[in-house]
Amino acid sequence: MSIAKADKPIILVTNDDGVTAPGIRNLVESIKDLGTVLVVSPDKPQSGMGHAITIGQPLRMQRVHNFGDDVEAWQTTGTPVDCVKLAVDKLLHRKPDICISGINHGPNHSINVIYSGTMSAAMEAAIEGIPSVGFSLLDHGIDADFSAAQKVARKIVQLVLGMETEKHFLLNVNIPAIPHEMLAGMKVCRQAYAKYDENFDERKDPRGSSYYWLTGEFINMDEKTDTDVWALENNYVSVVPVSIDFTNYKLKNQLDEQWQETL
Amino acid sequence: MSIAKADKPIILVTNDDGVTAPGIRNLVESIKDLGTVLVVSPDKPQSGMGHAITIGQPLRMQRVHNFGDDVEAWQTTGTPVDCVKLAVDKLLHRKPDICISGINHGPNHSINVIYSGTMSAAMEAAIEGIPSVGFSLLDHGIDADFSAAQKVARKIVQLVLGMETEKHFLLNVNIPAIPHEMLAGMKVCRQAYAKYDENFDERKDPRGSSYYWLTGEFINMDEKTDTDVWALENNYVSVVPVSIDFTNYKLKNQLDEQWQETL
Repeated sequence: MSIAKADKPIILVTNDDGVTAPGIRNLVESIKDLGTVLVVSPDKPQSGMGHAITIGQPLRMQRVHNFGDDVEAWQTTGTPVDCVKLAVDKLLHRKPDICISGINHGPNHSINVIYSGTMSAAMEAAIEGIPSVGFSLLDHGIDADFSAAQKVARKIVQLVLGMETEKHFLLNVNIPAIPHEMLAGMKVCRQAYAKYDENFDERKDPRGSSYYWLTGEFINMDEKTDTDVWALENNYVSVVPVSIDFTNYKLKNQLDEQWQETL
Repeated sequence: MSIAKADKPIILVTNDDGVTAPGIRNLVESIKDLGTVLVVSPDKPQSGMGHAITIGQPLRMQRVHNFGDDVEAWQTTGTPVDCVKLAVDKLLHRKPDICISGINHGPNHSINVIYSGTMSAAMEAAIEGIPSVGFSLLDHGIDADFSAAQKVARKIVQLVLGMETEKHFLLNVNIPAIPHEMLAGMKVCRQAYAKYDENFDERKDPRGSSYYWLTGEFINMDEKTDTDVWALENNYVSVVPVSIDFTNYKLKNQLDEQWQETL
């Protein structure tokens, strides 16, 4: 990276909707005076890519100029996770001070953290020890109003840059699609237990063979009030701290007693 | 599914190496007398797909006969996660009694749980409330010896089918590439903290443009003896119970005090 200034934090920005999405443009605009910004983002939409990485084919990077002259930006042929790896290893040659991902067009609350390319990019950075935040707006529309989300993102980036973060600091932030003055505040939450009730839409091609479109209805199975789904339904910005240790310690303790050395 | 027998458990088998991989054939052989087996697997290798789902294009399924006349098997154009969704929604029309994924060609211990298509398929089933296990052998070779892994997989499937499992029961099982009689036993572990030190291999195409192959060295940052990496290094089969709740509760408690309603 050629334009880093030593006295300013380096802010790595990525997303999963691709480098031309309004969400990432709004995110960059909201924080670009807070540090030196590097954008590394997929060259096409990558929603639903989860934590996919590209190992069967090589990657390419191309300089782009979508964000004005003061923001260095690259598009890559890879996934959101690939973008973070390329940014750190090939462009920055160091860890940025923060990695932010988004602003996603659509929600990534509850179980969506698992499917989301937005959150996977942020998680990849957190594995590397980079404080990371994924931002999502509860509006899928290409003409969504990002003005409240911009204020929220700026506020949270300022908070994170100003604090001592733990080694693997990762937040999943979702923002209701309402004007900023209607937001009830920010709520630190746990991930709601929710799932999708799949319903493949079966169709016939012109030759009579079946094909299937994945559809599904979101089902919140969690009635408690400390979840991200509850917070969003009540006009709060939801902030879920996310772990990179997936161990189920409760089940580990149970099986420890029953299964140890039973081969 | 046409061949289900009411008195036998239904065992859904999938993987990420594709329906023709030796690993899934060995897995099916090891357990097919324990229940009615349905195989739904990708039609091509999908390693490193993480929890990707296919939303931008439709999916297709095709009946295959790789596993003999007594095992119903399908290949799909989707990811490992898509395979589980298709199996439950379009083929079984009910939850199987267990979902097993693998046997993966290569390790999925420690942080690999995040990148692994094998584990993502199992995780998808666990989200649905299906007891699930991913199996991986520490040998990438196409001619790997699966005989010890077969015995381990059979034992664990029997254990899981015989117990009362919690709602989201999910195990990540890795098996050392050594003969069965050399295995020290089975160890219930936590996920080691480890990462990949990325190093993109930069090359020039015939027109002089750069492209990059993702490579990386595995680094175990975790010296403790209760991890999967330690267990495997000491000839144990590692069993890590995996959570589908990614909330970082420790960080949640910290931020709860500092960040609540600070917008």
